[in-house]
Amino acid sequence: MVKNTHTIFGINGSFAVLSTRKYKISDIIIQTGSKAENDGRITRILGHYGGYVKFVSKAQFNQLYGQFRTQGIVVIFNAQIEQDLPSMSDTDGNQCLLILDRIEDPQNFGQIIRTAACAGADGIIIPKHDSCKVTDRVIQVSQGAFTETPIYVVSNIHKTIEILKRDGYWIVAMENDLKAKDWHKIDYKGKIAIVAGSEGAGIKKIILENCDFQTTIPMQGNTNSLNVSAAVSVILFERLRQIS
Amino acid sequence: MVKNTHTIFGINGSFAVLSTRKYKISDIIIQTGSKAENDGRITRILGHYGGYVKFVSKAQFNQLYGQFRTQGIVVIFNAQIEQDLPSMSDTDGNQCLLILDRIEDPQNFGQIIRTAACAGADGIIIPKHDSCKVTDRVIQVSQGAFTETPIYVVSNIHKTIEILKRDGYWIVAMENDLKAKDWHKIDYKGKIAIVAGSEGAGIKKIILENCDFQTTIPMQGNTNSLNVSAAVSVILFERLRQIS
Repeated sequence: MVKNTHTIFGINGSFAVLSTRKYKISDIIIQTGSKAENDGRITRILGHYGGYVKFVSKAQFNQLYGQFRTQGIVVIFNAQIEQDLPSMSDTDGNQCLLILDRIEDPQNFGQIIRTAACAGADGIIIPKHDSCKVTDRVIQVSQGAFTETPIYVVSNIHKTIEILKRDGYWIVAMENDLKAKDWHKIDYKGKIAIVAGSEGAGIKKIILENCDFQTTIPMQGNTNSLNVSAAVSVILFERLRQIS
Repeated sequence: MVKNTHTIFGINGSFAVLSTRKYKISDIIIQTGSKAENDGRITRILGHYGGYVKFVSKAQFNQLYGQFRTQGIVVIFNAQIEQDLPSMSDTDGNQCLLILDRIEDPQNFGQIIRTAACAGADGIIIPKHDSCKVTDRVIQVSQGAFTETPIYVVSNIHKTIEILKRDGYWIVAMENDLKAKDWHKIDYKGKIAIVAGSEGAGIKKIILENCDFQTTIPMQGNTNSLNVSAAVSVILFERLRQIS
């Protein structure tokens, strides 16, 4: 996989990128007099990146980035964010992978990455095809959480699940089905992979049939279904409750 | 409060608005050959709205709504979505109000409304000032959930909390503080109001001091904080787990 040039805006995301030391920074653009210029975390970390920092006036900055919510900082960097999935056979204890089967919406994908980092998930797996990629929009919504939670790209989710099962993972599908147990009746301890399906079509049948458990979050009310990123939050923090 | 004209796109949201019978429908625009035209729920409910339905060609439709994700349906309606808060003194059993202290982002507000409906919250309270209003963007993100969960507007959150306390509600603040208990160590049974603060500044001090409990969702990892709508999901479904 090739390294790509990415752009991130805002204090939280920029700080995450600058502090991880994993990526090649190419430019840091700061608007003079902005919130970012006066932010303690940002000013401290800028000390490490002297040659890369460019201060520009509000007028210049707005011309370039006026349509975004930047808080006055933009970081341009090179990174290979999507990774190959390494062998998980040696992991033990409480481990949690999140498998996203064809999530399409960058807002949802970015939010899921952010939630996964906050909930201590050990990685996110997405398929090579039919999935939202790690675009700059996704990066932005994640608020820099992609620097903490590895994002693995695999050619075939079905085969990946086979391998994870051999490596001792239990596979839990998030699916509204009569067979599905309520989300808090699943045991999330040990090595777990949680599968979430696409916003419209859910989880592919061949994948669903290969999962060990199905879990559902029963909806109150009549018309609504939970957004996939909200549902992932509920499940990942229920896991955290159980293992804490 | 005056009735306002609102626009909603997409099958789920449109179906919610058309099926609730609470609002005055002014126009239903369907793109011929679209997903909406062939959706069973939509075609059945259109039977009730004969005179209001307008079918237009793909070309015409795209000219008007091409930049939105509509699935081929747009509903224009009149509604007074924001309501005054009635007396809550007669409620009993498990009751849950959600108080949003100055949420600014329409995406967050819309998602919170959607989650609140799915989690069976009994109402959302927002302040008259310094808060995102129920705009069309909020309506859209909520996917029609505003038809199920009442949204109450009050002039003063602080005073409202005083009244709710007299009416037997326990007030739980979502706040990262040393005094705060982990989110799953709070007892959410009975009459509860949960307070979430703004994305940047959190809950106002005067409001925070008036709450009975503080709860927090401890973050794993280094850089991140949970999005407010994700945090609300976690809390509301933990409540549901406890009362179910």
